[in-house]
Amino acid sequence: MNVVYLDNYAATPLHPKVKEAMHRIVDEVFGNPSSDHRFGQAAAEALDTARKQTANLLGSEAEEIVFTSGGTESVNHAIKGVAFSQREKGRHIITTNIEHKSVLNCLRTLRLLDYQITSLDVDQYGLVDPAAVEKAITDQTVLITIQLANNEIGTIQPIAEIAKIARQKKVVFHTDAVAAAGIIPIDVKALDVDLLSLAANQFNGPNGVGALYVKRGTPLWPLLEGGVQENRKRAGTENVVGIVGLGMAAEMAWLEGHERLEKFRTLRRKLIDGLKARIPNLKFNGHPTQVLPHLVSVSVEFIEGEGLMLLLDEEGICVATRSACASGSLRASHVLIGTGMDFALAQGTLLITFGRDNTEAEVDRLLEVMPRVVQTLRDMSPIYQKSVAR
Amino acid sequence: MNVVYLDNYAATPLHPKVKEAMHRIVDEVFGNPSSDHRFGQAAAEALDTARKQTANLLGSEAEEIVFTSGGTESVNHAIKGVAFSQREKGRHIITTNIEHKSVLNCLRTLRLLDYQITSLDVDQYGLVDPAAVEKAITDQTVLITIQLANNEIGTIQPIAEIAKIARQKKVVFHTDAVAAAGIIPIDVKALDVDLLSLAANQFNGPNGVGALYVKRGTPLWPLLEGGVQENRKRAGTENVVGIVGLGMAAEMAWLEGHERLEKFRTLRRKLIDGLKARIPNLKFNGHPTQVLPHLVSVSVEFIEGEGLMLLLDEEGICVATRSACASGSLRASHVLIGTGMDFALAQGTLLITFGRDNTEAEVDRLLEVMPRVVQTLRDMSPIYQKSVAR
Repeated sequence: MNVVYLDNYAATPLHPKVKEAMHRIVDEVFGNPSSDHRFGQAAAEALDTARKQTANLLGSEAEEIVFTSGGTESVNHAIKGVAFSQREKGRHIITTNIEHKSVLNCLRTLRLLDYQITSLDVDQYGLVDPAAVEKAITDQTVLITIQLANNEIGTIQPIAEIAKIARQKKVVFHTDAVAAAGIIPIDVKALDVDLLSLAANQFNGPNGVGALYVKRGTPLWPLLEGGVQENRKRAGTENVVGIVGLGMAAEMAWLEGHERLEKFRTLRRKLIDGLKARIPNLKFNGHPTQVLPHLVSVSVEFIEGEGLMLLLDEEGICVATRSACASGSLRASHVLIGTGMDFALAQGTLLITFGRDNTEAEVDRLLEVMPRVVQTLRDMSPIYQKSVAR
Repeated sequence: MNVVYLDNYAATPLHPKVKEAMHRIVDEVFGNPSSDHRFGQAAAEALDTARKQTANLLGSEAEEIVFTSGGTESVNHAIKGVAFSQREKGRHIITTNIEHKSVLNCLRTLRLLDYQITSLDVDQYGLVDPAAVEKAITDQTVLITIQLANNEIGTIQPIAEIAKIARQKKVVFHTDAVAAAGIIPIDVKALDVDLLSLAANQFNGPNGVGALYVKRGTPLWPLLEGGVQENRKRAGTENVVGIVGLGMAAEMAWLEGHERLEKFRTLRRKLIDGLKARIPNLKFNGHPTQVLPHLVSVSVEFIEGEGLMLLLDEEGICVATRSACASGSLRASHVLIGTGMDFALAQGTLLITFGRDNTEAEVDRLLEVMPRVVQTLRDMSPIYQKSVAR
């Protein structure tokens, strides 16, 4: 059985060029990039190339890229790095209710350390209102952190507009772009953000590698302290194998970007139209147009997403019920609840994310299997029986 | 020309079994270990194996191992994690003057956040006196952090003795074992430490991967916050390729440990005796017996280590002048200064570290080349000319 993988937000299959680049480092380059001898220099050159490739994807300077161990470290670095460095200036931070857990949990900790957090509501589509951001700014505000696109419903925030407000008010602005980078075009100069987080495993690079864009002059303490690596912004001997994978993934995302976008849009349209035609009582989440092109969040009434996911896995189709990072937790998605959805419907939500390797035939397969599996689960659901009986 | 690599503290060549394991993951396993479907579970199983392999090397339980992005993250996690979690209990931390920069720079930051740091002197061999540790403890002390072995001079501290004092006084004890783990046998239960840091690139694993041993019940905030990975101790999708490399490196260090130790001792003896016989005015650093078996720190009077290192590199021999992490900084080693060495002699220090692949023939080659290169540099040194003229 050919397995259909539609959980590309959790992790993407490595691009063949990424595999090739990582194999080469495993075989040939073991040196420490900080060593001055030939082995060190070979590793340092590999890092340089990856830094240029990553910077190119974002339209930044190479020296504004700090390599990290993934999206979570990038976000932790940005938020805690600004909060601690600015603690004498002020201790107020603005965010939204539907950020990734890495953002929300950093802020929960900062609250314990006497920071004030304003967490803004979003509308039914997950959009935050830039005017609400502006209104929340006080003379104590040192950081605004708002995601570029939501990882569970795909809604893309008006980041350039918010960044402009932050710039006018002289507040540092971080955007968590983990769900968006490598998927949609991003230009940090056009957005005019100070900090931007990304992760390689969103665009056919390896797990556990990411980057933080740090605009020159942004006040930021290191999160990892020690040696003078990464332009003194992030200590620790670099994960050369992984970083080279990130660099190559960034290059391929840049080269294939347009083609991938077209494919994503076709698959997404086909999937949404097909599901609507085949299964009653579905709700599609996220903004109708300002949305990631590779992501479909659909809430299926009367059933639980977990059961649906497992039955689909048995049929050889891999999807998610929410972000993998949260899969150990049993609560309903704070993102869906944040858009006003009720708990039961939130529990019945599937997250389907495409990657460069998916095909229309795979969408056809999901469209063939899913109605049957949904019906099986609904037939076992007492709430569904009651609803049908009415 | 066969290049002789004698800088195994900076990074070690990957073990063939480690390469094989990493290649397999690159080719076959891309899933997110938190995903519940088959791709996720394949990745989760790879992590499980690596966790058991790493735990076995340390004599710990598998669930006491937290994977990190390297020694620096492990150290930052241990120190900041305990300091923040215990901030209501007290804000006093004890360390020594010759710790790795990751320890010292974490503590410098905590000082800015109103923590008090006691940094203990060491003797001429780099040894700390356990009685001095005991004397430094106050009712505000929440953490003692002392390295297991020094990364520049190899001196092994009396960790079990210090851990016993910490246990009696109910103070959390962290040991930075990055320079020692995978080289000498370590049993965390026998040492009775609460936290222990290690890095894979010290024992033929990849750069940018490490682990933190966390004894069950140790109070510790996460450094990276977000998802529920690593038993809720370290958020972020795991670097599966690197972690599998660490696990296999740990297994091979365990299996080959005795054999490697014997080889290290032979090579070390041969090198020290050979250098003593061939070059006058050398000083060998570190404790004469309580010392890492694979490390030789030698200070060469009248010359600079940097020049020596570069000339040796031209001859195809790679050594270091100090820890690679500090190579961007031009100051003399704080470790050597901490043992009472004067600045000029400290600048003339070479750090030679063996790995499993080194041979006696390679030591012979260094013994043949180094006297000539040292003489070349001394002939250009005005201080040497003056000294000879006397």
